[in-house]
Amino acid sequence: MHVFYEPRIAETLALSNEEAKHAVNVLRMQNGDVLYVNDGSGNLFQARIVESHPKKVTLEIVERVQTKTAPRRVRIAVALTRQADRLEWFVEKATEFGVRDITLLVTHNTGRHKVNVDRLNKIAIAALKQSGNVFLPIISQPTPYKTFIHQADASLKLLCTAADDCDVKSVVAQHMNVIALVGPEGDFTAEEMKLAVDNGFVPVNLGPYRLRTETAAIAAACALSLM
Amino acid sequence: MHVFYEPRIAETLALSNEEAKHAVNVLRMQNGDVLYVNDGSGNLFQARIVESHPKKVTLEIVERVQTKTAPRRVRIAVALTRQADRLEWFVEKATEFGVRDITLLVTHNTGRHKVNVDRLNKIAIAALKQSGNVFLPIISQPTPYKTFIHQADASLKLLCTAADDCDVKSVVAQHMNVIALVGPEGDFTAEEMKLAVDNGFVPVNLGPYRLRTETAAIAAACALSLM
Repeated sequence: MHVFYEPRIAETLALSNEEAKHAVNVLRMQNGDVLYVNDGSGNLFQARIVESHPKKVTLEIVERVQTKTAPRRVRIAVALTRQADRLEWFVEKATEFGVRDITLLVTHNTGRHKVNVDRLNKIAIAALKQSGNVFLPIISQPTPYKTFIHQADASLKLLCTAADDCDVKSVVAQHMNVIALVGPEGDFTAEEMKLAVDNGFVPVNLGPYRLRTETAAIAAACALSLM
Repeated sequence: MHVFYEPRIAETLALSNEEAKHAVNVLRMQNGDVLYVNDGSGNLFQARIVESHPKKVTLEIVERVQTKTAPRRVRIAVALTRQADRLEWFVEKATEFGVRDITLLVTHNTGRHKVNVDRLNKIAIAALKQSGNVFLPIISQPTPYKTFIHQADASLKLLCTAADDCDVKSVVAQHMNVIALVGPEGDFTAEEMKLAVDNGFVPVNLGPYRLRTETAAIAAACALSLM
């Protein structure tokens, strides 16, 4: 089962440059071959190749495949990690868990302020095709902490912190739209924590030990996917 | 707070070569300085340096620090991944989540049969010191699937599979000693699944999408740490 990503498939009925090249030059697909197209917005289509060219593969839709959907809309707001590969791993895992939005935060203790969002998007697309998830996470540009806190909107907002005694499982049930906020190495400052709590974030822990930034973000994604 | 790892601290009252070198040459610690020693078997000690030398640091114990313990004993039995770094990430995350035992499995669809367990142990020790967990996971050498299935013993044994409709959260409560079995890329064969079920493993899913081997293993570790 070969899955391709094409966000505008429903309009264009075609695979674009890179995906077309992969289908024709690498997989040697031909007219009449059947493939699957994920549009990253909730749809998976079974389609048949009408015309194959390495620069454009024209398709006809056979059917819209019924897909499972994640039961809860989850946004993970995570501070930038010092090492880029740790954030890349998180994006891959978050996509597998069905996280819908990823906000990259710049906090007081964040070591860097820049990130290659294009590269993160490519990692998310690869994970999307592999995992069978049909919602490509929307990844933000780095966002100042205060800006995010003031605009964050969900039925439950979690401030993930090792310091708190409240278990995540005790608060998530019934909430279908959840934000989890995860701090940087060196954690949030006391002021940043207060700002979050003043804006309705509920402090919860993610287990008994100190988790690295990307581990806490993965734990939040996993817990909110499974609980 | 500087934390060192020394499994025999209670007998030797000293840091061994590598840790001693780090304390004296890198951190420039001196007689009278206070540090923490994690023995990986459930204990964290506060200690004071009596004699510092780059090859041996002699200590006196100040006190045994009260530590949180993971509420459940978890073993993750995971098929070897094709790429070594994916398994290394899992070991780091599993240590942060407090997993007690890691069994590396060779199954029908496992791409490789060898792994550098020494390297995995070093990664686990680094994660142990960083996370505040005091139980170093015991990592097995690669083990044939059948051998493991026949000797696996716990109050709950989970067969993690995307195919099943049973949620992990519906079965774990109350069980304090749990094994989670995670298959390779290409999944277990039908025979391997039957063997597990025949030996008391309960099939459960870890969410709606297909998870990579190391993601499923991390998800199991996280779920069993938080639920």
